[in-house]
Amino acid sequence: MKSIAKVTIFVLFVVFGFGAAYAQFAKPEEAVKYRKSVMFLIVQHFKRMGAVVQGKANYDKDAFSANAAAVEMLATLPWDAMMAPGTDKGDTTLNSAVFDKPAQFKKAAESFETATAMLAGKAKGGDLNAIKAQFGKVAQNCKSCHTNFRKK
Amino acid sequence: MKSIAKVTIFVLFVVFGFGAAYAQFAKPEEAVKYRKSVMFLIVQHFKRMGAVVQGKANYDKDAFSANAAAVEMLATLPWDAMMAPGTDKGDTTLNSAVFDKPAQFKKAAESFETATAMLAGKAKGGDLNAIKAQFGKVAQNCKSCHTNFRKK
Repeated sequence: MKSIAKVTIFVLFVVFGFGAAYAQFAKPEEAVKYRKSVMFLIVQHFKRMGAVVQGKANYDKDAFSANAAAVEMLATLPWDAMMAPGTDKGDTTLNSAVFDKPAQFKKAAESFETATAMLAGKAKGGDLNAIKAQFGKVAQNCKSCHTNFRKK
Repeated sequence: MKSIAKVTIFVLFVVFGFGAAYAQFAKPEEAVKYRKSVMFLIVQHFKRMGAVVQGKANYDKDAFSANAAAVEMLATLPWDAMMAPGTDKGDTTLNSAVFDKPAQFKKAAESFETATAMLAGKAKGGDLNAIKAQFGKVAQNCKSCHTNFRKK
């Protein structure tokens, strides 16, 4: 890793307190398992909403809203685990770009959090067209972040 | 399974709409992976709070509250996956008592949800003694449910 990237990470540690968050994981494998668990759950709830958006399942406002709320909360969880040093090795799809471009990664994470929170809001509103539009934006966030920060 | 238990489960399906929830899982393995993911995440956040309660980590109100909020939300998720038929076989610690005593299991699940929601409330309040007391109640809920519904 280049020195400038190391310095950037150090600054992020200090400014955002990531150091404390990293320390939550006793070992790298725990961070990997943590983020995999979160992403698996996000995918499950996202798929349930996707079936409705694609017309393959009936729209039930409460059920959709529960799925959107779950994704909203889950979306806040995995980032510290993804930024845990050394966890781009082994059985993981994490791209080392996360460590080379931490500010860009953090921005992508925040964008996803915002998009999922907006989806949860639309889901509470119950306007299916508005929901579908926002669901598409969440999906774009998934794709964009995976393109940049997930191994091909 | 005795007929009376089958009838009880059928009634629960109809009354609480569990049938629809079960259908969310394409196959039993998915339900098992889902609930394992949730329980792993609950344990992670519970351990972080436990370290504070035991005096092994400093108390930070915001961090503790975030952990409690995560557990509160996660606590609502795993039950349908635990009640998915046939998922007490294979690589799982689920006790078949879940299927024999679904009403008792459901009650234990609700008790856990209530206890974790109360912990999240106490965490927001910031009174560490009140937090510790409620943390203990959540821990009792874990133990009680595991005694009855987890394989020994």
